[in-house]
Amino acid sequence: MNSWINVAEVWRGSILESVHRGRAVVCDSAGDVIASWGAIDGVTYPRSSCKMLQALPLLESGAAARFGLNSEQLALACASHEGAHIHTDRVTTWLGDLGLGETDLRCGPQFPRGKEEQEELIRFGQKHDRRHNNCSGKHSGFLTLNKHLGGDAEYVDPDHPVQQAILTAFEEMTGETSPGYGIDGCSAPNHACTLRGLATSMARMADPSRLGAVRAQAATDLVAAMKAHPDLVAGSGRACTELMQAMDGRTVVKTGAEGVFIAILPERGLGVALKVQDGATRASECAMAALLVRLGVADPNHPSVMKRLCPTQYNFAGLETGRIAPAEALYAGGAQV
Amino acid sequence: MNSWINVAEVWRGSILESVHRGRAVVCDSAGDVIASWGAIDGVTYPRSSCKMLQALPLLESGAAARFGLNSEQLALACASHEGAHIHTDRVTTWLGDLGLGETDLRCGPQFPRGKEEQEELIRFGQKHDRRHNNCSGKHSGFLTLNKHLGGDAEYVDPDHPVQQAILTAFEEMTGETSPGYGIDGCSAPNHACTLRGLATSMARMADPSRLGAVRAQAATDLVAAMKAHPDLVAGSGRACTELMQAMDGRTVVKTGAEGVFIAILPERGLGVALKVQDGATRASECAMAALLVRLGVADPNHPSVMKRLCPTQYNFAGLETGRIAPAEALYAGGAQV
Repeated sequence: MNSWINVAEVWRGSILESVHRGRAVVCDSAGDVIASWGAIDGVTYPRSSCKMLQALPLLESGAAARFGLNSEQLALACASHEGAHIHTDRVTTWLGDLGLGETDLRCGPQFPRGKEEQEELIRFGQKHDRRHNNCSGKHSGFLTLNKHLGGDAEYVDPDHPVQQAILTAFEEMTGETSPGYGIDGCSAPNHACTLRGLATSMARMADPSRLGAVRAQAATDLVAAMKAHPDLVAGSGRACTELMQAMDGRTVVKTGAEGVFIAILPERGLGVALKVQDGATRASECAMAALLVRLGVADPNHPSVMKRLCPTQYNFAGLETGRIAPAEALYAGGAQV
Repeated sequence: MNSWINVAEVWRGSILESVHRGRAVVCDSAGDVIASWGAIDGVTYPRSSCKMLQALPLLESGAAARFGLNSEQLALACASHEGAHIHTDRVTTWLGDLGLGETDLRCGPQFPRGKEEQEELIRFGQKHDRRHNNCSGKHSGFLTLNKHLGGDAEYVDPDHPVQQAILTAFEEMTGETSPGYGIDGCSAPNHACTLRGLATSMARMADPSRLGAVRAQAATDLVAAMKAHPDLVAGSGRACTELMQAMDGRTVVKTGAEGVFIAILPERGLGVALKVQDGATRASECAMAALLVRLGVADPNHPSVMKRLCPTQYNFAGLETGRIAPAEALYAGGAQV
């Protein structure tokens, strides 16, 4: 089964210009499906949406405690940040605390996503480096774990103890044997799973009651860190940050490349995972906003939610040209699930 | 009928990560379908892919001759350029020749797409303006026609004589009554048609034998201009420019926003139109490259063709992560059509 449903529509004037399809699923921590759209047993790469799973061994191993990581650092370990000063300064300090530097990171140099930081680099003739990579917080976490484990410098090698620990945690949380991995944008392996498995893992982050004590505490700490520091998880104006702020830090959301988005709902003990077939972020943001509204955790009239749920489209002259809207098949008038 | 077929696949490692769907059609100048994929009677906005149709009245009216436009200017009138100096300098001169300036353009200011131009503006603390808009050549053409017609300054108003002349040409070339228009990125109306109508109009640009003498000459001149100046039609490193260069200027291609792409094949008297359902450019470029190969006008081993047909994907560290490839449903092993 490979079916996809319409999740987001792109309107220009009164004509439907483009359509995005996707799949989504809401699970509880037992792995039971609460609601689903499309073929949720399809295999997908979680990409950056699973960074909190990849951070579990950092805490479970005792590395985070040994090196005294604070909740800002835990949030950065789960972040896809925009390379702003609030992110890169903290990464610089973190690496320094470990006695390491930028060249120890194995993620490649990425031009920062934030417009201000971009202009600053260009204006002062500076070069972006690996700290600007949106995954540099995750990699600082990898380096911290690696220091604790005493592994060699190539910590993104799939056979490296750091990645093996992550794979074990990932498979236990999704409840699946991963069918394989791809090399992610940051050079770390990204293990595949079903969309249902991904939602289940997020439900277990939301409701750690079925986990062992050490993992439950790690999950609780990571979710708390993401809730407490939405600005560190993404950045100014970005969907994850603004949606978490709009939900008063009670629900965690995290995007991944190629149209993936997850949500962790501690108050309902649920996890959500969605994947847009074509990989478009405008669609995954719209679809996630729609699901958060349907799950009763986001207000469709909050400006930060509206901005993703039904964003008006403008052209370069500032004229309104159309809108993006959740498809009926997914949104169903916003009916509660 | 609303069916779409798979046109492009995005692979990461050995797992299919994302899929794009689309429709495509090849027509001759009689409007007969030579080959088709998906529901080709679906309505679409051609967006910038139809700029050569929008430029027909500029020539047919006598405005181009009266103001002595050269083939570079005709190419710019059909362009979605990247705001490089080769584009903006020519627009500046053109506007000056008309006794007009940047503020007479009704397209909004757009940050140039070219990285060099972006960095130059930032480094020297300059602001981008309307000349950097990728449509500023088209709008210079609109202003030229408007000067000839003596219309008021608001030449993007759908009821303005400039836009009315364009609508007439558009409907005659597509052979359809347009079901409506949307406001384009450059504030001009963009009229919708079926994908089949769009391909038919391009076949008529390729083979003007069924057109009246004045229109046939206009079509011939515009196609010749695009062939002669692929660098002005888009810019350095861009798909339209590189594909036209790779085909030795014998075939014209033009992209449009939201996953539209057209081709004009004078040697075969054919027109091609394709639309990607989700609007992704990476997919429309891949699909167009696949069709050009199947039509026997592009060499699949030419680096500029390969770059779109089957581009290897790299991450920030320069590691290979996967590839994009045309879907079997569209490419069928590259079999000739």
